[in-house]
Amino acid sequence: VSEVQNPQIRLACRPSGEPDESTWHYVEVPAAAPGPDQVLVRNLYLSIDPAMRSWLNPVKTYVPPVGIDEVMRALGLGVVETSNSPKFAKGDLVSGVLGVQAYATVGAKHLESIGEPRLPLQTYLGALGMTGMTAYFGLLEVGQPKPGQTVLVSAAAGAVGSLVGQIAKIRGCRVVGIAGGADKCAYLVDTLGFDAAVDYKAEGWTKALKDACPDRVDVFFDNVGGEVLEAALLLGARGARYVICGMISQYNSARIAGPSNYATLILNRSRMEGFVVFDYHARYPEAVGQLTQWIQEGRIQNRDHVVAGQVRDFPAVLKKLFSGENHGKLSLQIGSV
Amino acid sequence: VSEVQNPQIRLACRPSGEPDESTWHYVEVPAAAPGPDQVLVRNLYLSIDPAMRSWLNPVKTYVPPVGIDEVMRALGLGVVETSNSPKFAKGDLVSGVLGVQAYATVGAKHLESIGEPRLPLQTYLGALGMTGMTAYFGLLEVGQPKPGQTVLVSAAAGAVGSLVGQIAKIRGCRVVGIAGGADKCAYLVDTLGFDAAVDYKAEGWTKALKDACPDRVDVFFDNVGGEVLEAALLLGARGARYVICGMISQYNSARIAGPSNYATLILNRSRMEGFVVFDYHARYPEAVGQLTQWIQEGRIQNRDHVVAGQVRDFPAVLKKLFSGENHGKLSLQIGSV
Repeated sequence: VSEVQNPQIRLACRPSGEPDESTWHYVEVPAAAPGPDQVLVRNLYLSIDPAMRSWLNPVKTYVPPVGIDEVMRALGLGVVETSNSPKFAKGDLVSGVLGVQAYATVGAKHLESIGEPRLPLQTYLGALGMTGMTAYFGLLEVGQPKPGQTVLVSAAAGAVGSLVGQIAKIRGCRVVGIAGGADKCAYLVDTLGFDAAVDYKAEGWTKALKDACPDRVDVFFDNVGGEVLEAALLLGARGARYVICGMISQYNSARIAGPSNYATLILNRSRMEGFVVFDYHARYPEAVGQLTQWIQEGRIQNRDHVVAGQVRDFPAVLKKLFSGENHGKLSLQIGSV
Repeated sequence: VSEVQNPQIRLACRPSGEPDESTWHYVEVPAAAPGPDQVLVRNLYLSIDPAMRSWLNPVKTYVPPVGIDEVMRALGLGVVETSNSPKFAKGDLVSGVLGVQAYATVGAKHLESIGEPRLPLQTYLGALGMTGMTAYFGLLEVGQPKPGQTVLVSAAAGAVGSLVGQIAKIRGCRVVGIAGGADKCAYLVDTLGFDAAVDYKAEGWTKALKDACPDRVDVFFDNVGGEVLEAALLLGARGARYVICGMISQYNSARIAGPSNYATLILNRSRMEGFVVFDYHARYPEAVGQLTQWIQEGRIQNRDHVVAGQVRDFPAVLKKLFSGENHGKLSLQIGSV
């Protein structure tokens, strides 16, 4: 095993804005042989997520920052090559924090078994992975939408947002999405069944947003922050819930802009609430089962954006995420079963 | 009645920052005779509140803005001079929106009867008025403090803050106050029984705040906003509740600074929530009864800051509020029973 070469992307230095070429460092090292209770995984799919940007800052959040010269953190899906654990056998499909590399040597307790896949593999990093868990528990548990209420979603054509909107529709809500560009907006309404979509890149979009929410907004699921959050704060219905999931508009800023109109929380008797999806770990099987059923029934359109390539393509694929080029859950495929 | 002269303070123009002399316009006009179901009230105490600043902005909040050349809005307490309503008789003590003037001609349905006072009159504008209702329902209903938890209060020596802290102590919480100056901090600990107090005007106050909250903060009751809110967001315990009551540090700013670190809501699984005290109107008698009992038992130290003067003194008294000169609930006494 130690003869196998393992291409890796490591963190060269902390970016002050958007990561660029100088942020990363490509190396090839021998894959580490698995120790007791460890497993050697050959990575097939690497999940490309907005949270990656926050892991680059020298600040502990819900996880420590990625260290300089450490392998870049990434969720991934792979196949077991060698197992020193009774939990896994060669050929098993697993997911976990595998890193931006071709092979991962990981403790068995840090891996989840995929079992016999019922949907395409990439979906286990998307609608059935952290993306789906985030949408499901963030919307239903933090947002608490009621039938007939208006649910507004930002980054609505993105991986999490598109699931949030569709789950809200299944729950009987009026659903409005915010996305960048006419194509994404058309996709939300025509393909995903949103009631309305607003293009935040278009002139006069805040007026369009107001018009799209005649009964104001009961739940806002936000992945964007900045002026999108401020626009939504102006539209809160009484008792509105602002689910704070992310703030992709701000991740590359030196100083995050807080919502200057948070006083509207007083006027509208509203709340902004954050959550960490890991807290719902014990309930993941419930969500995976429900989402699998909805996808198989065709009630949820699930879109995965898979880029085929190699480990060295990671920096370019990450850029797609921040420029909004991706349509659905982005992952980098670097191998096949 | 129409022969009685009525001194008034009216709004001359909208201030862009802190109100000054040019903001106000002093007039004396004949008091309006009460019409059917109206009452003529001789004002005794005018309540001086932070919310007054927000009423000057050309923006509807939970009430419309005060119009140019309208009498400045103020809560007050007075005595009925003439009543055209069966609800009130001459000599009754009443409270309501009486305005910055010597006499108010008001519909009977807009007045509350004080009844036979059990505490000094000014207290009915303070601990037993909107101030007390705000502290009581904001802390207990929105903040939901549990025994043993840490409750942090900003503007803690102020009218609302001092009540919030003492109610939290009665409920078995560890209570930390933030106030400006050593005198106020000593007052919080020595007189009101807070567990700790932090002077936000002192060097290194954010470190002192962290030290004062070794188990972090479960409930933050905020009347200040700005950097005080940001400091508190860094200290949230898991599931912390940030009760947004006001933002006095920002009221005179052209653009309110939102909390740049609101992403901590995610990390700490916390929420920021606003409220409007009027929503608890039906439960005011419960709160008035409870607070009266606590004050009479000596469990709540209630401090009213009464400035004796005339209607024309209002601009100067309002300035005391924004400069933090007041100790406790500020009111302007312009008459006696």
